[in-house]
Amino acid sequence: MGNIAFAQKDKIIEDFMPSEVNQQGREYPQVNSEGRVRAQIAAPDAKYVQLDIGAVKYDMVKDENGVWTGESAPQDEGFHYYQLHIDGAFVPDPGTRYFYGAGRWGSGIEIPASDSYMYALKDVPRGMVSEVPYFSDITQSWRRCFVYTPPCYNNNSNKRYPVLYLQHGSFEDETGWSAQGKANLILDNLIADNKAVPMIIVMDNGYAFKPQEEQVVSNPTRPAMVFEEVVMQEIIPMIDTRFRTLTDRENRAIAGLSMGANQTMRIAMGNLGHFAYYGGFSGTANYPSSAPINVETFLDGAFKDGNSVNEQLKVLWLGVGTKEAEVFQKSIGAFRDMLDKQGISHVFYVSEGTAHEWHTWRRSLYEYAQLLFK
Amino acid sequence: MGNIAFAQKDKIIEDFMPSEVNQQGREYPQVNSEGRVRAQIAAPDAKYVQLDIGAVKYDMVKDENGVWTGESAPQDEGFHYYQLHIDGAFVPDPGTRYFYGAGRWGSGIEIPASDSYMYALKDVPRGMVSEVPYFSDITQSWRRCFVYTPPCYNNNSNKRYPVLYLQHGSFEDETGWSAQGKANLILDNLIADNKAVPMIIVMDNGYAFKPQEEQVVSNPTRPAMVFEEVVMQEIIPMIDTRFRTLTDRENRAIAGLSMGANQTMRIAMGNLGHFAYYGGFSGTANYPSSAPINVETFLDGAFKDGNSVNEQLKVLWLGVGTKEAEVFQKSIGAFRDMLDKQGISHVFYVSEGTAHEWHTWRRSLYEYAQLLFK
Repeated sequence: MGNIAFAQKDKIIEDFMPSEVNQQGREYPQVNSEGRVRAQIAAPDAKYVQLDIGAVKYDMVKDENGVWTGESAPQDEGFHYYQLHIDGAFVPDPGTRYFYGAGRWGSGIEIPASDSYMYALKDVPRGMVSEVPYFSDITQSWRRCFVYTPPCYNNNSNKRYPVLYLQHGSFEDETGWSAQGKANLILDNLIADNKAVPMIIVMDNGYAFKPQEEQVVSNPTRPAMVFEEVVMQEIIPMIDTRFRTLTDRENRAIAGLSMGANQTMRIAMGNLGHFAYYGGFSGTANYPSSAPINVETFLDGAFKDGNSVNEQLKVLWLGVGTKEAEVFQKSIGAFRDMLDKQGISHVFYVSEGTAHEWHTWRRSLYEYAQLLFK
Repeated sequence: MGNIAFAQKDKIIEDFMPSEVNQQGREYPQVNSEGRVRAQIAAPDAKYVQLDIGAVKYDMVKDENGVWTGESAPQDEGFHYYQLHIDGAFVPDPGTRYFYGAGRWGSGIEIPASDSYMYALKDVPRGMVSEVPYFSDITQSWRRCFVYTPPCYNNNSNKRYPVLYLQHGSFEDETGWSAQGKANLILDNLIADNKAVPMIIVMDNGYAFKPQEEQVVSNPTRPAMVFEEVVMQEIIPMIDTRFRTLTDRENRAIAGLSMGANQTMRIAMGNLGHFAYYGGFSGTANYPSSAPINVETFLDGAFKDGNSVNEQLKVLWLGVGTKEAEVFQKSIGAFRDMLDKQGISHVFYVSEGTAHEWHTWRRSLYEYAQLLFK
């Protein structure tokens, strides 16, 4: 149970403000200028209450009214999942809105970032995000994606738009990119600044299994490979039917984060006739290996002919945060070594001071989207 | 803390199944054929854990592994908000998805209903629900609505559609009708059966305050009257710009539940040049009064000329559940007495066995939507 909060108490800067993803009118949790999180909950009969964030549990302290309060160490800027721990029960903090990640719907907190201009709510035209249900014959189930359409989409009933397919990571789902990822706000702002061309973004669920093969979502290193079939045979045709899309390869991009980077690289490289842009945010298809890549066998030799890859992929984009675990740095490093050896040009972006978390991926989208369809 | 669960233990039918609104893969909470809810949570160090549903707290019992389990009395069919109570802390159940109601994001449970065909996931074409942000000059804030577009909306880029404006109740928000209200599924099924004409549905947030006047959302009987201005001056023009709508009064309907019934009645009757259909689900603008209505003064005399109301309102629809509190029965009764006295025809629907809850309003929408735009 530790007592980190006690030890640091005298050093905490008292400029806490309610988190911007709190439920309406809730004063807690709060965040201070150091990036510390202060949580508070009434639990008059509890023996102990802890704030569980960033894989550390911080003891909270009870006052005379039975209200527990406690602070975390400073957190990286950006979005984090967290929870409360009350007498052995792990529960969401009733003060926050809820987000899907870490395999659950649970609490989130936003540490104000120096580059929050990326997704700031500005006085600019705003697109919309639509929940689009579809029946998948492959999985024999109703599935859904969220589709961002740019601000001008509804102004002009004839214009067609390029499409970015954008995937979440393991233990996350199709809600992540438009909720904690802020993909819609990032694009609204980029489009308003003429830094990105208006595009449609399709965000689907990377977990797709054949009937009777549905599995516990528990193994991030094992891609759910039927997702590739669902994307190519079902999602893309459905999107091209329901939305005013440009359907040639030069107007179709794909990207993903972590597990989604792995999945979308397999999809892109297996279907270069359909995609001209690839983005891997904190992930590559050789993950978790840091061994030199054998181009003869890797993804069925998809990178063997470097000139052909250069010709077909207008942008091959990779990014990683400086605080990400070694396994990401090293597997992406091994992948880049292979690209260099093959003479395959690519963009490599480093997100300063961020870990394997959403702020790295917001920045990645912000950078990647500016290079698309130009 | 009571011990209702103990007393009834031997009578409980052991056919519990996971609730359909559980988080993916979660076994608890469960519901049995009596409509009892069984909750379960690990809390090895807790002194007590209770299931808090329908304004009753049911004690849960700890097993040797520190896992608490407990059952409620039978609940009405349909959707209910609930929470857990752990040593004095009121928290969401981490087993469920979360819904906005009772002034918070929290747990929900679905008691399978005899008429769940209304919103069953069938093999029919499905519309989509879009999150539409807009800046309100009146409130000086970004607001959003959710907009349902029918299945055919994206097939035909020229056709225009009638619009239903559909409002939530007090302590709820713009997410309610498409989440726990299942408005999109109800309409998809009605349209597939040719029982309703394809229509757009706009679901906005009924809480709207002028800058500096934002209030704690705590008084359901006091309508936030600036909402009327936002609807008429901002939402309708915005929807008519961004969507392919039919904009004459005969193609515009409005309805709401509880507080929303009150608000939308004021909006409809104050703007009959803009609406030809009104639906009041478990509410009327004389709420909470059961006194005879003075037609000279009520809503500025809007019901004074019965013939004119009959001519202008193609449907005036009222509904209430048999288990709703007397204040709803009586205020709606007083309103109907006034209509009868004025010779104003209306539809009155009674939802059997349901209270002031979402199942009453799902049924109300199911009935009301079939009468619109015909």
